[in-house]
Amino acid sequence: MFFQVIDILGTIAFAISGVSVAMNKKMDAFGLLIIAFVTSVGGGTLRDILIGQTPVSWMTNMTYVYVIFGATVFTIAFRKRINYLRISLFLFDTIGIGLYTVVGVEKGLNIGLHPIICIALGTMTACFGGVIRDILCNEIPVIFRKEIYATACIAGGISYFVLRQLPIDNNIVFIIAGAVVITIRLIAVKFKISLPSLYKD
Amino acid sequence: MFFQVIDILGTIAFAISGVSVAMNKKMDAFGLLIIAFVTSVGGGTLRDILIGQTPVSWMTNMTYVYVIFGATVFTIAFRKRINYLRISLFLFDTIGIGLYTVVGVEKGLNIGLHPIICIALGTMTACFGGVIRDILCNEIPVIFRKEIYATACIAGGISYFVLRQLPIDNNIVFIIAGAVVITIRLIAVKFKISLPSLYKD
Amino acid sequence: MFFQVIDILGTIAFAISGVSVAMNKKMDAFGLLIIAFVTSVGGGTLRDILIGQTPVSWMTNMTYVYVIFGATVFTIAFRKRINYLRISLFLFDTIGIGLYTVVGVEKGLNIGLHPIICIALGTMTACFGGVIRDILCNEIPVIFRKEIYATACIAGGISYFVLRQLPIDNNIVFIIAGAVVITIRLIAVKFKISLPSLYKD
Repeated sequence: MFFQVIDILGTIAFAISGVSVAMNKKMDAFGLLIIAFVTSVGGGTLRDILIGQTPVSWMTNMTYVYVIFGATVFTIAFRKRINYLRISLFLFDTIGIGLYTVVGVEKGLNIGLHPIICIALGTMTACFGGVIRDILCNEIPVIFRKEIYATACIAGGISYFVLRQLPIDNNIVFIIAGAVVITIRLIAVKFKISLPSLYKD
Repeated sequence: MFFQVIDILGTIAFAISGVSVAMNKKMDAFGLLIIAFVTSVGGGTLRDILIGQTPVSWMTNMTYVYVIFGATVFTIAFRKRINYLRISLFLFDTIGIGLYTVVGVEKGLNIGLHPIICIALGTMTACFGGVIRDILCNEIPVIFRKEIYATACIAGGISYFVLRQLPIDNNIVFIIAGAVVITIRLIAVKFKISLPSLYKD
Repeated sequence: MFFQVIDILGTIAFAISGVSVAMNKKMDAFGLLIIAFVTSVGGGTLRDILIGQTPVSWMTNMTYVYVIFGATVFTIAFRKRINYLRISLFLFDTIGIGLYTVVGVEKGLNIGLHPIICIALGTMTACFGGVIRDILCNEIPVIFRKEIYATACIAGGISYFVLRQLPIDNNIVFIIAGAVVITIRLIAVKFKISLPSLYKD
């Protein structure tokens, strides 16, 4: 229940971010809906395809479809005022990637993949919806160029495997690892920390 | 037999549209062939991957390969005169998306997916070849920005499920739903109807 | 063992080419790593997804992960001097696509696909990592526009099936077909041969 609420908040934040980017490209209502959709479920879909879990998860769980549709209609209706929600959306997005990272890691673990691959799957779940959004909008994916975003997910994934070595209940491991993602992302944005640039010299 | 002819006409129209877009980007013969291919089979391929039907369908049916190859060679050979075929190609494309929509819907139904997901699969089958074409040509997908195209497919998919409630033979449902797609598309193009713009204000 | 060395050299060359393209786009370290990764394993991943061999191969073989990670760190560290390696990298890349083409062809054969489809799978294995790299970097894929690259892979694939008709050991067929790819590519680059342009007239 707790995780479901986070999942839905994350889905909403991702969908609204998708609609916002798509609006900058002057897409029509259908385009906005598709971009909202791929931003929200694209990462998990890519993960499911790569590990062979088909039909991919949103096809058998209508909640995502309804939430994304609702978020798209809401964003279109209040498109002039969506900026007021910026901070809430940033927070939803951030707790969303915390959750998605750990969900992705555990999906990999369940089929016996190597920890590094599991961390890659977690990062992919959290980040690749945004990558597909940017490709469809004809932009170089923003997470390849700035901000600590994927890096926070990778750190969360690593902490998951470190914590599993300790005598801690699995739910606690889940929550702490997610919190690591969220904390790093919040600190990085608050103090404007990014990966060291390679292009100064 | 009847449906096979439509399928092939649709495949030809999609392939030629792919070659035309790729020629505007000055691609070489190999690039033209690949773009023809993804435009024709990309939507069905994405659908098959998402629902886990692999090897994807064009890999086990050589007809598509031969038709697309032939259409590509034809378009290259007659590239200065392909414009004369514009109206025929528009019609082939339109009946093609009518067929592909319903085929996609039924693929979803066969594995017991929710009607909304089936409609999404139908729309994807008809429209996402063009989306992948545009991405490979470094353009924002045209169906996200203008024309009633995907909307016609969605309407056709909905009518499929409405008609299924009635005591009608399944083949008739198939044909009427396809005809709905075709009719909406024709009317929209004839009267230059598009989704209401969100960007006036 | 011999093939493994080629595989690793090819992976290194692909990873470095990915990092180089990504650096031109001013990506951060995370972006460079992802582009290195998709350039190296993207073709084989697409092939595995299309034929339904999941989890895709790099997920169950950590060698690729380590090699790509090492190549990325190396390229970042020596980014000002990577140009000295240009000829070596060209050679690694070329023997890499020779190997990948034949590996892809055989994967298709193993599941009983038509020779034309097998050749398509081989070409895809060798070439589509570069295609995905270019899409993520917001460029029209370079192999769609110039150079004999995919054409060499197609020729190698065809020679594989011709040679199989002859009473030759399968390993020899494998090596000759790979050598055909390599030879055509070397000759094409040496003599600056490309597909005839369609756009002069």
